Amino acid sequence: MARPITLFTGQWADLPFEEVCRLAGEWGYDGLEIACWGDHFEVDRALTEDGYIESRREILQRHGLEVWAISNHLVGQAVCDDPIDQRHQDILPASVWGDGDAEGVRQRAAERMADTARAAAKLGVDTVIGFTGSAIWKYVAMFPPVGDDVIRAGYADFARRWNPILDVFDEVGVRFAHEVHPSEIAYDYWSTVATLEAVGHREAFGLNWDPSHMVWQDLDPAGFIWDFKDRIYHVDCKDTRKRIGNGRNGRLGSHLPWGDPRRGWDFVSTGHGDVPWEDCFRTLNAIGYDGPISIEWEDAGMDRLVGAPGALEFVRALNFDKPDAAFDAAFSSSKD
Amino acid sequence: MARPITLFTGQWADLPFEEVCRLAGEWGYDGLEIACWGDHFEVDRALTEDGYIESRREILQRHGLEVWAISNHLVGQAVCDDPIDQRHQDILPASVWGDGDAEGVRQRAAERMADTARAAAKLGVDTVIGFTGSAIWKYVAMFPPVGDDVIRAGYADFARRWNPILDVFDEVGVRFAHEVHPSEIAYDYWSTVATLEAVGHREAFGLNWDPSHMVWQDLDPAGFIWDFKDRIYHVDCKDTRKRIGNGRNGRLGSHLPWGDPRRGWDFVSTGHGDVPWEDCFRTLNAIGYDGPISIEWEDAGMDRLVGAPGALEFVRALNFDKPDAAFDAAFSSSKD
Amino acid sequence: MARPITLFTGQWADLPFEEVCRLAGEWGYDGLEIACWGDHFEVDRALTEDGYIESRREILQRHGLEVWAISNHLVGQAVCDDPIDQRHQDILPASVWGDGDAEGVRQRAAERMADTARAAAKLGVDTVIGFTGSAIWKYVAMFPPVGDDVIRAGYADFARRWNPILDVFDEVGVRFAHEVHPSEIAYDYWSTVATLEAVGHREAFGLNWDPSHMVWQDLDPAGFIWDFKDRIYHVDCKDTRKRIGNGRNGRLGSHLPWGDPRRGWDFVSTGHGDVPWEDCFRTLNAIGYDGPISIEWEDAGMDRLVGAPGALEFVRALNFDKPDAAFDAAFSSSKD
Amino acid sequence: MARPITLFTGQWADLPFEEVCRLAGEWGYDGLEIACWGDHFEVDRALTEDGYIESRREILQRHGLEVWAISNHLVGQAVCDDPIDQRHQDILPASVWGDGDAEGVRQRAAERMADTARAAAKLGVDTVIGFTGSAIWKYVAMFPPVGDDVIRAGYADFARRWNPILDVFDEVGVRFAHEVHPSEIAYDYWSTVATLEAVGHREAFGLNWDPSHMVWQDLDPAGFIWDFKDRIYHVDCKDTRKRIGNGRNGRLGSHLPWGDPRRGWDFVSTGHGDVPWEDCFRTLNAIGYDGPISIEWEDAGMDRLVGAPGALEFVRALNFDKPDAAFDAAFSSSKD
Amino acid sequence: MARPITLFTGQWADLPFEEVCRLAGEWGYDGLEIACWGDHFEVDRALTEDGYIESRREILQRHGLEVWAISNHLVGQAVCDDPIDQRHQDILPASVWGDGDAEGVRQRAAERMADTARAAAKLGVDTVIGFTGSAIWKYVAMFPPVGDDVIRAGYADFARRWNPILDVFDEVGVRFAHEVHPSEIAYDYWSTVATLEAVGHREAFGLNWDPSHMVWQDLDPAGFIWDFKDRIYHVDCKDTRKRIGNGRNGRLGSHLPWGDPRRGWDFVSTGHGDVPWEDCFRTLNAIGYDGPISIEWEDAGMDRLVGAPGALEFVRALNFDKPDAAFDAAFSSSKD
Amino acid sequence: MARPITLFTGQWADLPFEEVCRLAGEWGYDGLEIACWGDHFEVDRALTEDGYIESRREILQRHGLEVWAISNHLVGQAVCDDPIDQRHQDILPASVWGDGDAEGVRQRAAERMADTARAAAKLGVDTVIGFTGSAIWKYVAMFPPVGDDVIRAGYADFARRWNPILDVFDEVGVRFAHEVHPSEIAYDYWSTVATLEAVGHREAFGLNWDPSHMVWQDLDPAGFIWDFKDRIYHVDCKDTRKRIGNGRNGRLGSHLPWGDPRRGWDFVSTGHGDVPWEDCFRTLNAIGYDGPISIEWEDAGMDRLVGAPGALEFVRALNFDKPDAAFDAAFSSSKD
Repeated sequence: MARPITLFTGQWADLPFEEVCRLAGEWGYDGLEIACWGDHFEVDRALTEDGYIESRREILQRHGLEVWAISNHLVGQAVCDDPIDQRHQDILPASVWGDGDAEGVRQRAAERMADTARAAAKLGVDTVIGFTGSAIWKYVAMFPPVGDDVIRAGYADFARRWNPILDVFDEVGVRFAHEVHPSEIAYDYWSTVATLEAVGHREAFGLNWDPSHMVWQDLDPAGFIWDFKDRIYHVDCKDTRKRIGNGRNGRLGSHLPWGDPRRGWDFVSTGHGDVPWEDCFRTLNAIGYDGPISIEWEDAGMDRLVGAPGALEFVRALNFDKPDAAFDAAFSSSKD
Repeated sequence: MARPITLFTGQWADLPFEEVCRLAGEWGYDGLEIACWGDHFEVDRALTEDGYIESRREILQRHGLEVWAISNHLVGQAVCDDPIDQRHQDILPASVWGDGDAEGVRQRAAERMADTARAAAKLGVDTVIGFTGSAIWKYVAMFPPVGDDVIRAGYADFARRWNPILDVFDEVGVRFAHEVHPSEIAYDYWSTVATLEAVGHREAFGLNWDPSHMVWQDLDPAGFIWDFKDRIYHVDCKDTRKRIGNGRNGRLGSHLPWGDPRRGWDFVSTGHGDVPWEDCFRTLNAIGYDGPISIEWEDAGMDRLVGAPGALEFVRALNFDKPDAAFDAAFSSSKD
Repeated sequence: MARPITLFTGQWADLPFEEVCRLAGEWGYDGLEIACWGDHFEVDRALTEDGYIESRREILQRHGLEVWAISNHLVGQAVCDDPIDQRHQDILPASVWGDGDAEGVRQRAAERMADTARAAAKLGVDTVIGFTGSAIWKYVAMFPPVGDDVIRAGYADFARRWNPILDVFDEVGVRFAHEVHPSEIAYDYWSTVATLEAVGHREAFGLNWDPSHMVWQDLDPAGFIWDFKDRIYHVDCKDTRKRIGNGRNGRLGSHLPWGDPRRGWDFVSTGHGDVPWEDCFRTLNAIGYDGPISIEWEDAGMDRLVGAPGALEFVRALNFDKPDAAFDAAFSSSKD
Repeated sequence: MARPITLFTGQWADLPFEEVCRLAGEWGYDGLEIACWGDHFEVDRALTEDGYIESRREILQRHGLEVWAISNHLVGQAVCDDPIDQRHQDILPASVWGDGDAEGVRQRAAERMADTARAAAKLGVDTVIGFTGSAIWKYVAMFPPVGDDVIRAGYADFARRWNPILDVFDEVGVRFAHEVHPSEIAYDYWSTVATLEAVGHREAFGLNWDPSHMVWQDLDPAGFIWDFKDRIYHVDCKDTRKRIGNGRNGRLGSHLPWGDPRRGWDFVSTGHGDVPWEDCFRTLNAIGYDGPISIEWEDAGMDRLVGAPGALEFVRALNFDKPDAAFDAAFSSSKD
Repeated sequence: MARPITLFTGQWADLPFEEVCRLAGEWGYDGLEIACWGDHFEVDRALTEDGYIESRREILQRHGLEVWAISNHLVGQAVCDDPIDQRHQDILPASVWGDGDAEGVRQRAAERMADTARAAAKLGVDTVIGFTGSAIWKYVAMFPPVGDDVIRAGYADFARRWNPILDVFDEVGVRFAHEVHPSEIAYDYWSTVATLEAVGHREAFGLNWDPSHMVWQDLDPAGFIWDFKDRIYHVDCKDTRKRIGNGRNGRLGSHLPWGDPRRGWDFVSTGHGDVPWEDCFRTLNAIGYDGPISIEWEDAGMDRLVGAPGALEFVRALNFDKPDAAFDAAFSSSKD
Repeated sequence: MARPITLFTGQWADLPFEEVCRLAGEWGYDGLEIACWGDHFEVDRALTEDGYIESRREILQRHGLEVWAISNHLVGQAVCDDPIDQRHQDILPASVWGDGDAEGVRQRAAERMADTARAAAKLGVDTVIGFTGSAIWKYVAMFPPVGDDVIRAGYADFARRWNPILDVFDEVGVRFAHEVHPSEIAYDYWSTVATLEAVGHREAFGLNWDPSHMVWQDLDPAGFIWDFKDRIYHVDCKDTRKRIGNGRNGRLGSHLPWGDPRRGWDFVSTGHGDVPWEDCFRTLNAIGYDGPISIEWEDAGMDRLVGAPGALEFVRALNFDKPDAAFDAAFSSSKD
């Protein structure tokens, strides 16, 4: 049987969880990758409130949905980030933001990520997806310059802050799937290599494969799956369209808002962009990935109520299984 | 609501107007971009014959069609052309061709274009699409050479001939939408810049965006929309397939007929070619274009009765609206 | 009427002929290109066994299928090959392999190919598709080096062995359609030129156009149709996806099995690869090819029971006819 | 010995012949391709004035130069052109222009081209390079449309006008080398095929290979040499730089003057553009071309006194001979 | 006469000014673009110390060098930056850093930039090159998200801080040439458009064209010159080599140090990278730029003592003038 | 100091060793990579003949040359090959060929390769370059098909035959550098990975980096250096020009001889092809390779006496060292 297809609820957190379930169920999704924000899945309530987990499960069941993973990008972002500023306040739960003191925010975010693992275990899912934040992302432009020691210290800071969190993941039997993404400790191929080295390739730390930021960085999303095949713990299908090539639109987006045609790239509904999806799905087959395929739907130029069911149809068509036997068998049956 | 989709009747003028309406109606088109040749829309009758306009409207209504624009490429071609020859006689109404004296033909063509504006106003549409002709197109190969003064004189000739026509357009509240096209005063990006300057960027003179000739000239059709965003008065969807790259097929077509696979490019049914349609439609959304999307169907390798409904289906799928809110909103609703 | 679409049974020879007919009929194929192996079409029985031909025809009819061509790649392979080894034993009928003495195998293979022409005539089809084998394919890497005389001798060997076979083809009014393919005497464009010269462009020897190996050799499949337009005797639609470009996957496949994502290219279900199918079908229209379009289905990453009907749907949509009249006619009907 | 390198004097006709000889001699050119305009080589004087030929030869010798070919592009242009207009008057000798009646101009131009052959023979060179003009070039944009009969008539007109001229070429033992070029009867690959067919592939009519207009039409200049290898009678090295790719600069040049960076392509000093020179020179070696290599220098952005010697140095470095023996010989000398 | 070629001393500030002058003079540079750090040009001393300016001039003259512009990137960086951190302390003069309070640093940096204009005037040069810093660069990754109001506020902050500085520039008759660069307010094409709008296109604010960061962002450096032709106040020739395309090396550099072959791009000696230098120099000719061409030499893989003279030779060869007359003139001189 | 540049004598073995030394010395080469065929370096004599080694050394010294590596491609080829045929007889010493019995040839070849290590040690060089041969190369086209077990057996056969040879290499302190090449056990990236695994990554077995066959297989030669950085034991600079892209020239060469312009690729003099040499040399610097850079000169279209000194000049210019300090140092020296 083919892998289940889920909808990531992160871009739908302005809607009540129940409503997102209703929509996803009607469209035919097999389940949800539930975001830990909005009212979708609240980590603190999950751990402390009797019946909360059951209530989530009941809503899911009522709409014919299952869950294999939850996501906590927003809190994870604050674990290593520097500086911590207004942007974090905008996306963090108040209890994590607290008084806004940077180091305090980071530590409360780390605790909350450990709690997210515990809540995942309680919900019965074995994967938490998220961001890590990064103390060194801000050096990406390399000017004013910093020495290589500063870069190495950034990876070390990441390991120092995340190893204790990952210990909790190990304790409760849950894996963390980091989404490789600008702003994070691993944002491309070689920074992923360095990141995995920084935590000693420990099994608790793997990757959420999301090709959307690979496309505009000119990374090969299918090759990424193959090269990190033992660390692909989850799959997010978000698409990106490049609008490069006129000599004016640039790779870095020019501070222009999503949907502006002068951006060098933009997120588009899955299947409308430049991700080589079929190559990627075939590579997922080749490495034996059998987890959920989650659609992260984001497109500033299309109504999401139109786009999300279309994306499901697109992905369903590519989500085919490998055959059992090799075709050459046919030639060997030749008889006289 | 999405923009209406019309069929341009220019390539169907061998059929009676009634028959074209029947076909377009059955296929589900929202309306027509009516050509001023064949029996589709006769400018002189529209201005002089009582009930003519009403008869057209009645036929349209009977087939559930509307009209937002009419087209008079063939007469417009003669306004500036030099030389005037057999080709013009073949495509002009006899009353415009007259005795075939070149300057006389040009002047009668100019009068007929002014009349086309008047007829459009009478029909209740605010856009006339067409060609301008050009006194300098013939210098495109730049050999034998001409001086830059000759080129400048060509733009001036265009302005001198078209300004009085455009005055009539202004009088009757109609706009002219020039189709950027080889053989015309504006045939690419920089000649469009020069053309708009030649008429002082007057509002009566805008553009019919048709990407089919941009593709083989290596122009960016989506960027064209953005850069001339205040002059995109109408949209024609005609597609072109490049067959370049074997070192033998050339950009200029080798005098080969449409449909010959040795041509470096050819017109194909909308959606079968190299126009980046979705990028273009998104850019039309970005500039707020809300006029009709007209399918100019032309494909020497496909039966038009098969192709035209297929093109409608293709365009309908891409003709989606922008959403109202930005996706980032979802992240801000995070609560504790 | 559009050309019929057939299924090549070569990759289905592990199934009984009756079962393949049942599947193809249910999927809506118009007929079969029947392989001369498995129990699909046995040349010796066809020539010697009363009622054998009728039994094949009966099964086809029962499933609403026709036949325009048969294929005998496996026996043809042995006609010129050098060395003859275990691989040939694996794919040849025992009566052709005999004691395995190389020259004896080649001569029995040649006789069997002549018999295949006779059997085709008896079945009422005018085309036999197949391979030729090659005495010089093994020199493709050009190291250790051989002189140009050795290459010329290889083409001469091919002509010497195939001319008598082609004489039989001429006698019975059947044409041989060689599939241009690595391992064969003609495997690319210029080797096809040399091959046709080697047999003096005799009419009995033409080509089975199969673009799958052209794609990864960077040949232009549509141009191939045009340049060899008088020798395109049959069409096989097999598709190939290139996975080149990461600097690691190579053109020669790295000895990796089908379906391995590190191969530089792989066969995929028709329509899922890099063949420019529409350009090719339009070129087939342009040269007036009116024979069958046969789908050679092969994809190590997809279940063939899913892929084969999908491929039919894909090809059916592109298998459109040319129109009768040129579009320009519409402009000439302008009247006053 | 390597082929001689000459300078084409067409772009230097504002200077006296003596001065051009002085420059070319000092720069180290081996000879000149002499233009039949300015005072460089006057056809009528060559045929009628005693000592004229000797005077030219004397000047050449004094500067250490030889001549293998003369060029008469300007007069050839008028043989088939339609319309004949001011541009022709600007470039034709007064005696050819006469009263400017179009057909008279064409006939006088034809006579002058025959005379050019006679003058070439008298000078002792066997090749005349030039243009043909074309009655159908003006239909290149294919709008307003013309039927294929009009195109065929254009090739027939060319044959009708040039065959008598070519008869004179045959009589005096000189060959005509047409420069494939926009504005001419053959301007790309397939129009060259049609042109050669129009004159029955007669030996008197060959080609002057000049890649500068092939580059922007996306033709392969090296492949052109190979495919027309028996008709490459002369070589002109003019270079072109493409400035395509920003979506704004177009293939047709936008009526912009040479040197304007918004043109999609421009002529540049030989070696500064996109012609794959080394591939072309190697192909010239492969077909055994042993005539002169002529530098047609034209670059609106560089001083010609700087550019012309630089171009010679560039071409000299690529004008190497083939070796005598194949390298594999080295492997066969292995001894024990 | 061609434009002068200077060496930017910024990457040589570890050497004494005298030594840099000696090297540049020996290599044949025409002058220097002097950096306001190291001991090369000290703004405070220039304004306050008698004879300082004269001492600089004397050293230059002794080595045959001139100066047309000075640079103060390091101080300019601090004017708008947020956060202000260790990186700024590393590159700022102690008197600007002061106690390190962010807003104080910004204000002292602004004052120092105004002083730089005054010092430039005193030195007799009319151009100061530099960076602006940016309050919004840190939002480049767009996650965590900020609203478009925050972006607009960033441009406003830039204008608010720089307008008073530019007033001083106007007072002393000096222009500021901003180097478009990541980390700055303008880092690509569209952010340059927005930046120029933010200061109302005032003449005091122009651009230092440096293509090195355009290359890896896929911007067209030649088109940039044309589009901003009235604001190209200075030219810095720094080159970049892209190492993209293997699917692993990314556009953002992976936090890898200069010279690491896994970086997606790297600075290389001028002429060794992917900048289309000749196109750019021709465009500089086309816009009439006649200021200095400054070589900003930076290459982590090459000894600068080898590279800097090589870069001069490379640039000198491309720094040719336009000719005076158009080539077509030659054709018009035809006489009978 | 930069690495020494040597000339590989393999393509010069038709000349006496003394003569090759004379040429290389005059051209300025630093040394030779001596081929073990012709009279250049005879393994059996080296081991058995007193004074032979000294005589070679003496000749080298007389011409100012050194030697760091010897090559024995021709004998290595026979170690694993199957079939063994006329081609091997043509290139093997008679004492290795013997009676031509395939297995006997293979074993004698293996012994000779072990002897080559011993001779290298005696000569005082630590690297032997060569080919391995392959029992499975002949399956490259994958038709007739073989199972994956056959492929695995091929790698095992290679290990079984070469491990004893490599034991001798270890004994005498010499390393084998296999040249990745079609016809060999490792001919591309992934087959190199499999090959190194087959011999357990033992240190005695490394690679001779030669990019010429990588280019036409679309492998990245610079990335190859990085990924196999601990096994780059020697560097051969042979260049290849691709002539792909016209849809007719194919990747496999069409059985056409070297120098034929219809081949899809061809060897050309170092620096005249498509190898990204500077990227590769910089990567060699990055991995710290400090062995010789050997020019393997082969170009069927150029006289080797012209090409070999030109190649040396080309390589010398790129063979620059890395600098000692990072450029950022300059920024940190800012003082107040």
